[in-house]
This record gives sequence, C-alpha cells and structure tokens, in this order.
Amino acid sequence: MINILEMINIHRLIRHIEELSSIGKNDDGGVNRFSYTKEEQLANELVKQYMEEAGLTVHFDAVGNLIGSQKGTIDAPAMLLGSHIDTVPNGGKYDGSLGVLTAIEVIHSLKENKVQLKHPVKVIAFKDEEGTRFGFGMIGSRAVAGTLTEVDLTRVDQQGVSIEQAMKEFGYKKERLQSAKIDNVKAYVEVHIEQGKVLENQDAALGNVTGIAGPLWLQFTLTGLSEHAGATPMNQRQDALVGASLIIAEAEKIAKEYPTAVATVGKLSVKPNGVNVIPGEVAWTMDIRDIHEDIRDELEQRIRQFAETTATERRLGLEISVLQRVAPVRCDEKIQEVIRDSIQEIAEPVVSLPSGAGHDGMQFKDRFPVGMIFVRSKDGISHNPKEFSSKQDIGKAANVLYKSILKLDAN
Amino acid sequence: MINILEMINIHRLIRHIEELSSIGKNDDGGVNRFSYTKEEQLANELVKQYMEEAGLTVHFDAVGNLIGSQKGTIDAPAMLLGSHIDTVPNGGKYDGSLGVLTAIEVIHSLKENKVQLKHPVKVIAFKDEEGTRFGFGMIGSRAVAGTLTEVDLTRVDQQGVSIEQAMKEFGYKKERLQSAKIDNVKAYVEVHIEQGKVLENQDAALGNVTGIAGPLWLQFTLTGLSEHAGATPMNQRQDALVGASLIIAEAEKIAKEYPTAVATVGKLSVKPNGVNVIPGEVAWTMDIRDIHEDIRDELEQRIRQFAETTATERRLGLEISVLQRVAPVRCDEKIQEVIRDSIQEIAEPVVSLPSGAGHDGMQFKDRFPVGMIFVRSKDGISHNPKEFSSKQDIGKAANVLYKSILKLDAN
Repeated sequence: MINILEMINIHRLIRHIEELSSIGKNDDGGVNRFSYTKEEQLANELVKQYMEEAGLTVHFDAVGNLIGSQKGTIDAPAMLLGSHIDTVPNGGKYDGSLGVLTAIEVIHSLKENKVQLKHPVKVIAFKDEEGTRFGFGMIGSRAVAGTLTEVDLTRVDQQGVSIEQAMKEFGYKKERLQSAKIDNVKAYVEVHIEQGKVLENQDAALGNVTGIAGPLWLQFTLTGLSEHAGATPMNQRQDALVGASLIIAEAEKIAKEYPTAVATVGKLSVKPNGVNVIPGEVAWTMDIRDIHEDIRDELEQRIRQFAETTATERRLGLEISVLQRVAPVRCDEKIQEVIRDSIQEIAEPVVSLPSGAGHDGMQFKDRFPVGMIFVRSKDGISHNPKEFSSKQDIGKAANVLYKSILKLDAN
Repeated sequence: MINILEMINIHRLIRHIEELSSIGKNDDGGVNRFSYTKEEQLANELVKQYMEEAGLTVHFDAVGNLIGSQKGTIDAPAMLLGSHIDTVPNGGKYDGSLGVLTAIEVIHSLKENKVQLKHPVKVIAFKDEEGTRFGFGMIGSRAVAGTLTEVDLTRVDQQGVSIEQAMKEFGYKKERLQSAKIDNVKAYVEVHIEQGKVLENQDAALGNVTGIAGPLWLQFTLTGLSEHAGATPMNQRQDALVGASLIIAEAEKIAKEYPTAVATVGKLSVKPNGVNVIPGEVAWTMDIRDIHEDIRDELEQRIRQFAETTATERRLGLEISVLQRVAPVRCDEKIQEVIRDSIQEIAEPVVSLPSGAGHDGMQFKDRFPVGMIFVRSKDGISHNPKEFSSKQDIGKAANVLYKSILKLDAN
C-alpha cells in the first residue's frame, strides 16, 4: 500500500477542512454559509490565506469568485482546479470545501516538493454553487463560463434582495460581469465527495466521474383562497396546501418508475401560514434529474400534466417557471483516463460512475474539458452535518489529484 | 314577503351598528376595541345608553360584563341574550356587535309594542370574547359560567399586564369573581354573523346553528434524513415532506367523509428548506373541528393512525402533540326548533349549519341550553374591515330573534 502522506501534507489538509468548517457553524451542528454574507466573506478570507501560503497570487473576480493563480513556465492554457465554499442550510463540512482545499494542498505540496508546472494554474472557490440564497446556483462558474447574464442578476432572495444588490454590497458591480469570463483552459479538474453510496457499496475510496446529470429546477406556485379553517366546509375549499401535497406525492411516484431519475421537493413555503387559516398560496421548488436528457424531459412533462389536472380539478391557480435547466455533461475522455491511471497507481480499485449531483463543471460544457474525482461519502450522507469522508480517503484523493495534474501538465 | 320592519325598528338598529362602529375606528378602515381599554369603555357607555333606552336596568358585573336586565311577570328562569363588543385587530363592525345590538333592539321593540315577557331577560355584552389582548378569550362568558379562575387572571398581555391588573384599573376586583356567575337560565340565544359562505352559497339570509365546533389543534413533526437531492436514489430516501404530503392529503380525504367535520393544515415548515436537499424535518399544525366530540375524536384517531403507518412504512420519526382541545357544544334541540319555526314564519329558507368558529355560548356547555342565529356574511369575510351583512338580512335576524323570544317565553 502507498503511504498516503507521500506527496501531500494530509495533516495540513485536514486542519484546513476543520478550520473552514468552524465558519458559519450553527447550533444544529451544521454549517450555514450563503453567498454574499458575512460568513461567506470570512470563509473567503481564510481560504485566501491558505492560497497565499501555497504560493498563489490571489484576487476576487467581478462576481466575487476567489481565484489563486500561479504562472507556468511556458505560454500555455491554464489548468483550472477548485470547487465552492458556500453551503446548503445546515450543510456538512466536505461538500465543496474539500475540492477547494485539496486543490490548494496539491499546489502547496508541489511548491514544497519543488515541482514547477509548465502550465499556469488557477485554483477557484466558485461563488454560490448551491443556489441556497437565490434559488439559482453556480453563479461563479457561470460567470467564468461567460454565460451569467444581467437578467440572471435580477433574481431575488426571500427578503427581495437581488443578486445584483447583494453583489454590490460586497463591492462587485454588474458592469464588470464579462471580465470574469476565463478563456484558454486546458482542463478543469474538481475533487468532490460522492454524496451517494455507490463507492461505499463497492468498497472503493475514489471514483472517476463519467458525466454529470443535469438538474432541472422548477418553481411551482399554487394559489387558492385563504379562509377561516373553522367556518369553511371541506367541499367549499380552495386549499393550496392539499393541492401541493397531492402533486408532491405524485412526483415521487412518477420518479420511482425510472431507475436513474430523481425528483425532489426541497423547499416549500405556505401563506398566510396561520394555524386556523386555509392556505391561500403554496410555493415550492422541484429538482428533477437524470443522466439521460430525454428521460428527464419525460418526467417533467408527466409531473407538469399532473399538476395542471390537480389545479383545474381543485379550482387553484398554477404557475410553473424554470429556475434552471442544465444539460447533462460528459466528462472529457482524456482527463478520465488520467484520473483512472492515477487511481490505479496508488493501488486503489478503479470505479467509474456518473454524478447525480450537479457541480460547477457543468457550466463548462462545450467550453473546457472537465474531469472529476469522487471521494467516498459515509452512508452516502451529504447536505447534512453527518456528512463524512475519512482522512484516508481524502489523502488518497489529494494524491490522485497531485498525480493527475502532473500527467496533464506533461502532455 | 314579510315586511322586515314589521316587528322591530331596523333604522334604529342600523344606526346603532354604525354609531358603535365609529368607536375604535382605525386608519385602515377597521375597528380596534380590546378588553379593558378606553375604546372598549366608551363602547360600553354607548351600549349602556341603548340598553337604558330599551327599558333595561343596567349594571357591570364583577369582571366588567355589561348587563341590561328586566324582570318577568312570573318567577322563572331568565332568558339570556347577547354577544360581545370587543374586536380582533382591525376587525369589522358586525362580529359580536350585531348580537348585542340586535338583542337590545328586540327588547326595545317589545316594549314599544307593549309586549310583556313572562320570563326575566338579561342582555349581556360579554367581556373579551376574541382573546386579542390576552390570547385567552371569552373572559366574560367564562365568568358567567362560573369557570373563570384566579389562575386565568394571571395571564398577561404583550406589555406584561395581567387580566387581574387590567380589571383592577377599571375597578373590577378578583375577590368578587364568583359573583359574576349566573344560575337558573332558561335559554341563551345569540345572533352572530356566519363568518363563512355556507348561507351565501345556499341563497339564505339566516341559519339555525346546530352546534359550535370545538377546535382541536395538533402539532405534527415528521423526521427523515436530509440528503443530497441528486445523489440519493428514490428508493433509498427518508423524505419527510413526501411523508407529510401523504398525511395532509389523507386528512382531507378522511374529513370529507364526515359532513360536519373540518381538518385544516394551515401552518407548515420544512427543514432545511434547500432546493436540492431532501427535507429532513417537516412540522405542521392540524386544526380539527366538529360539533360532535365523538366524530372529532374518531377523525383524530384515524388521522393519527394513518400518520403512524406512513411514518413506519417510510422509516420516518413522528411526534404528535396537542396544542389545544376545546370541547364542542351541541345547540339545544328545543331552541333550534323555535329558531327554525321562526325562520319559516318570515318565509325564509331554513338552513341548519354548525358553527366552525368559537362563540361565547361554548362556555355554557352542560350549564344552559344554547341557541344561535347566523346572519349571512358577504363573501364569508370576517375579522376584516370588509366584513358585511346587509340591512335586509339583519332585519330578518332581528325579527327571528323577536319571534323566538316570544315562543321561548310562552313555554
């Protein structure tokens, strides 16, 4: 067996993970770090320090992506590494953070090992991958891909604050949006926890990702009539929450018919939300995914149809809008080969698997070659304080990233 | 068609409603009259004057109930009439006031028509039915029922003032509490706006109330596992929101099987409430009502059972607690008959319906026979400046009360 401490400093990497997880820690044991907030800014400041210690030159781009750069020895396309450091509500300490900190560790170790890369490198902590605050997500990677528009910036959070306003508060102005775009990239490589149980079930520490299932995010609003809960007979009601409940239950039933598909209602709000008042409005999101775009489309159509029938039958108003529709992405064959070879070199089983979760790399479809290394998640749990990947597995992932970068740099 | 002005003076009644509604009127067009305040005192003084003009002898009892009395020609139990004149915040001008003023109008008209009743009569404006100030409610009717305790008087308003202190400020002392109890009552009859749309939907001006549904408020908490919406296959999930949706939809289905029952989920919250996170916890309230306590209990048991089965099948944790359980009251069969006959005599359709909302009469369960006459509410709107009942309908209600009192007095 390889000594996982061979090429990188696992103690430093684990220390960085622990330190970063203390920022935004809440009383439920999880982490809350949402985009353009004080907690996220504090996290950025800490990670900036790690980047500088690794020898990187740091700046924030036009939307607030944190970027650590180093020059190469030749004039060549850059290698992009990274992930995100924002979290879902009450999230874990590995989702996103692991990718950013592993990339920094690899660069730090390369410096300590006196290895000079031919290609320039950029390590990026992307702004708002999760979409927690604005129900949008991947703001930073969209900006880097050059696809983030001024219209996107008009999206608002629950307090009615737009992305543009939130950016402005931290000194980022929409006028400079286009300057965040990065061209001329050799490869984008990201380490991320699996957030599923495929690796655990196959007794594998690491996975080579073949592609990323594209999330489709729908926003539903069902409008009824809020009346007195005591004085309105059951057969005279236009109860938006019962309507919503039927649609949510049916969406699960439909999704279960397709082996690779998932459909999830994660966020829901009720108005006016009084104990003795019939709900007059219920709004919720639905996240639908499949690695096959045609299956995802079929699922979407069936759920929309059921929602429309339910709304009509129950005299409810229905609006459905698309928050995001991301096409599935295939990972680059050459990068996959490099990752598989690197996994093999550290004497680990090679498992290739698709990613059900979305990742920043999706935004680079048809722009940069993308590769991802998955790290085994204990019990597949993620977006939860119980999220866990072992020190051993993290060390292996960092070594595979180290080796992969050397291989990519050589060709 | 009957001339609705035949037995009572509708002009005087409408004038009284308008005059009273000007006391406590706010800038939003609604009325604010809370217990033991200057506005409520002014309203009491005005209503006291109306009572005296109607020939009643007026006094305030130990908690500040305003009571106008007249003797009967025989030594017999009293007939109690009335309602309340306090309001919810920004309330309408009919809820409560209509019942007090209609009762006064009937007594006034009987005097003018030179009709002497055999039974003594008491017209009461009950103290604090709504519970706006102390979150308690029906203070006056509890005192009359003899169930108001000194412990109840320790409840405080938002400024920390207790009921006892508020009472004292207006000269009412807890030591005299028991003196407010009234015994030997033949019937309690109250006119009130419906606050629903049952009468409107049936083109009926008036309703005979069959009972007052007591609310049972349950709090449900369903606990699952919040995992990543993309990476967790459908068959491995413990989704608290899908579980909740099934229970909410089933509760409606069960409640619909009972003609007089209602079950409402008005308030619901999702944790962690992220677009791409499987809900790990959903908490909601359920308001269950019926005029038959056994039916309400049956409903509760069936919903609890379904919730437990659902939780077990889906590997979810379930907790159910009781927020409040108020006993429903059946209206007296004889009074109901008298009201139905009186409605028929003025050539109006007879509609019998339960009251979903609570009323002072609930406090008299197992003490006095209770009856209520509902008046059609425009669009079912109440607790709102838009609350409205027409002059025609109010006139009909006053005539039905007039006739009902004569019938009750005769037997």
